[in-house]
Amino acid sequence: MTDDTTASTDPEPDDGGPAPILFYFEFSSPYSYFAAHKIDDMARLYDRAVEWRPILLGPLFQSSGNKPLTEQPLKGVYSKHDMARCARFFGLTFDFPDPFPFPAVAAARAVWWLKDQKGEAWGDEEGAHKLALALFDAAYADGRDIRSAEAVVELASGLGVDAHALSTALGEQAVKDRLRVEIERAVEAGVCGAPFFVVDGEPFWGADRLDHVERWLATGGW
Amino acid sequence: MTDDTTASTDPEPDDGGPAPILFYFEFSSPYSYFAAHKIDDMARLYDRAVEWRPILLGPLFQSSGNKPLTEQPLKGVYSKHDMARCARFFGLTFDFPDPFPFPAVAAARAVWWLKDQKGEAWGDEEGAHKLALALFDAAYADGRDIRSAEAVVELASGLGVDAHALSTALGEQAVKDRLRVEIERAVEAGVCGAPFFVVDGEPFWGADRLDHVERWLATGGW
Repeated sequence: MTDDTTASTDPEPDDGGPAPILFYFEFSSPYSYFAAHKIDDMARLYDRAVEWRPILLGPLFQSSGNKPLTEQPLKGVYSKHDMARCARFFGLTFDFPDPFPFPAVAAARAVWWLKDQKGEAWGDEEGAHKLALALFDAAYADGRDIRSAEAVVELASGLGVDAHALSTALGEQAVKDRLRVEIERAVEAGVCGAPFFVVDGEPFWGADRLDHVERWLATGGW
Repeated sequence: MTDDTTASTDPEPDDGGPAPILFYFEFSSPYSYFAAHKIDDMARLYDRAVEWRPILLGPLFQSSGNKPLTEQPLKGVYSKHDMARCARFFGLTFDFPDPFPFPAVAAARAVWWLKDQKGEAWGDEEGAHKLALALFDAAYADGRDIRSAEAVVELASGLGVDAHALSTALGEQAVKDRLRVEIERAVEAGVCGAPFFVVDGEPFWGADRLDHVERWLATGGW
């Protein structure tokens, strides 16, 4: 466990300003894709940073006994309809990925790895946001398959990330452990789905809570 | 099966105006309580009627394999926190019922029965709305137990409903069948949870879709 890891769990901004918004998301989650396109702009309105934290819903589902919404009777049909309608509501391009759900472990590990490359080109939070958004757009707007490590590396490379360094990192135990530990921490912190936001300790689950997140940012709570 | 039952499934307003909003709800559902306090006012803004349709989530959970949100690991803790915060967001009094979830079969049957008493005092939709709201407020604002037929009859009686007629009705097979058939129809119509709204054939699930319902009413869809 590095100091960086500890710092990112209980973020304390260097400038003494308000704490960043914690944004937990899963690549295999259309509602996370929508939120990923909204949260940075919203945060900026209230002078907040956003800390992006990819997780995997699989381990959460094991804890909660749930399975993906789209695979549930009744809710499956509705949720696919709702996802397409939400995309139009948010003004976002949306093609439902096939297959879905899909394993996004390489994508999630790549984002955590990039977050930890502080001081390198494309490293740190900003690069991680850009890579995460690019991965989301590839999967939901461009019909691309982002499941494999090769696909993730190719896409990251196009953004200027060192392909060799990332490719090597994705095979390292420390990088695998980083994601695993962050998912365990998310569960311990009460994260019960994705997207999930924490504003000054207050938890919000779902893209349909973005209006509550915004009011919380504007008012400090109610 | 009566003609009334058929008519209420595919509502055709007498005046040739726009179809009523279908509002499916479960008394043992805090999010349904919130929606019950919002949907009529919203509909009025757009000259719509609302047809209130109580259902029971138990049979839906049997179809979908779900269980109540509050009983799920991880989601249970979050959802209770979210319900209290949503109540404040909506400006509604809210005391979490104990026990919860609770069987609301008598309450649901009473509302369907009252909807069918066309031409009687307190009968038809308007009386059914008032009884349903009174039942919700009793359970969520006044800490009252609305599980038993006796409790439902006492509350309805206070609103002017004929206590003897309702009490007798709650024991009749036809009244029991009415609710059972309506739940089956709801499942066939794709209702996957509560609250659930249908506007001109467009389905919306959850109190957190009220903003989408309102935009749909205002724009005719997107």
